[in-house]
Amino acid sequence: MTLRIDLAYDGTDFRGWARQPDQRTVQGTLEEALTRLVGPVETVVAGRTDAGVHARHQVVSFRADAEPGALEASLRRMLPPAVAVHRVIDEADGFSARFDAETRAYRYHLDTRPAADPFRARFAWHVTRPLDVDAMNRAAADLVGEQDFASFCRRAEGRTSVRRVVSAAWTEADGGLVFDVVGSAFCHQQVRSFVAYLVEVGRGRLPADGTPEVLAARDRVAARGAAPAHGLTLWLVAYPVGFAEPPDLP
Amino acid sequence: MTLRIDLAYDGTDFRGWARQPDQRTVQGTLEEALTRLVGPVETVVAGRTDAGVHARHQVVSFRADAEPGALEASLRRMLPPAVAVHRVIDEADGFSARFDAETRAYRYHLDTRPAADPFRARFAWHVTRPLDVDAMNRAAADLVGEQDFASFCRRAEGRTSVRRVVSAAWTEADGGLVFDVVGSAFCHQQVRSFVAYLVEVGRGRLPADGTPEVLAARDRVAARGAAPAHGLTLWLVAYPVGFAEPPDLP
Repeated sequence: MTLRIDLAYDGTDFRGWARQPDQRTVQGTLEEALTRLVGPVETVVAGRTDAGVHARHQVVSFRADAEPGALEASLRRMLPPAVAVHRVIDEADGFSARFDAETRAYRYHLDTRPAADPFRARFAWHVTRPLDVDAMNRAAADLVGEQDFASFCRRAEGRTSVRRVVSAAWTEADGGLVFDVVGSAFCHQQVRSFVAYLVEVGRGRLPADGTPEVLAARDRVAARGAAPAHGLTLWLVAYPVGFAEPPDLP
Repeated sequence: MTLRIDLAYDGTDFRGWARQPDQRTVQGTLEEALTRLVGPVETVVAGRTDAGVHARHQVVSFRADAEPGALEASLRRMLPPAVAVHRVIDEADGFSARFDAETRAYRYHLDTRPAADPFRARFAWHVTRPLDVDAMNRAAADLVGEQDFASFCRRAEGRTSVRRVVSAAWTEADGGLVFDVVGSAFCHQQVRSFVAYLVEVGRGRLPADGTPEVLAARDRVAARGAAPAHGLTLWLVAYPVGFAEPPDLP
């Protein structure tokens, strides 16, 4: 059977998704519970998140023989409060959470109140105004399309940095700003690099029409490093028709 | 000058409001910063919160000579992210955050999703359905009025447990239930005892019309202990006309 778990986590106290020896990671925590329930499994994940990055909707697939409902209930009992299992289902045969994903949506939260909201401190980067949101959106619009994002990616030798960004926009929400970006896939630190760059544009330190030039440079120095991990959340993973719709999400 | 601070905090990592030797408390953290800025001060607080209880709106008063705007900016720089200073003002002479408070509103969050939302885990008690919300509201309505709440108070020798509750009601919100209660003042653990009692009513383990009997017993055993601290937030402190309105709050 190909099982699929849709889950969420507060990434604050994890060293990211990927299992690492002697580190508390989300994959390590999940696989430890699964191993006790169904025997050794290797999970495949839709989006490998870095240390401190959260997920509202993450998807995992693996092969095992188990009753999904019972597994769901057991996982909910065993996993720590920082990890929530939305749903466990028997997915279409051969389903891969990673390779079948059509788009990944990320959301980045900026808290722009003068005094940071302590209830959002774990999930939002505190940045004070003024920020020129129109300029940020103009610069963001030029990130859309199939392009080489080397200027926004941590270098990975021998791997392409061409990706397809479907949409990228800022909206006012929750006493701050929210950046929603959807793409086929993202390279390492791409979304956090977008945010760092766009905040510099919002501050007026970089021009709103400079995105094509930054992309053409294919050099990380042209962008502005990466925004803090804790503001970033993997928001939604979408699969083509034929696979299950996402569950009801908070 | 009588200075007033309106503030908020995530109480998770504090041993409550009140200063205690060798403990990290909100009052201790705030007074340490104030002492460095304006010299030794003794603060008076609107609502002393227990370990793990949060405040969206808390009010503090003290006497000192300082420019409120500069003090506000300095405190924001010095305090940890778990504490937010909404505002510092020069309040009416002789103002007491405690004795001038007219009402205190508390909010208690229940997360009733099958899988607890990890982004609310610090601020909501996870309780699964079914819960009979109508029954909970009928039982809550009988808590309103000036009554002896000894059944819902931790015993304090020689002190009255008579309080005035202005309103008490549950509403569906945020994938769960929210309990809003407003009163002149509350005795120790009163709101958390209300919640534990009302959840038992929601479960059908206590009758919806039993509140008068529980109150008459004047015995904590008649209620049902206290709900966890982390679901509780001091929501709003109100003062009579003549004192400043609350600031813009998240």
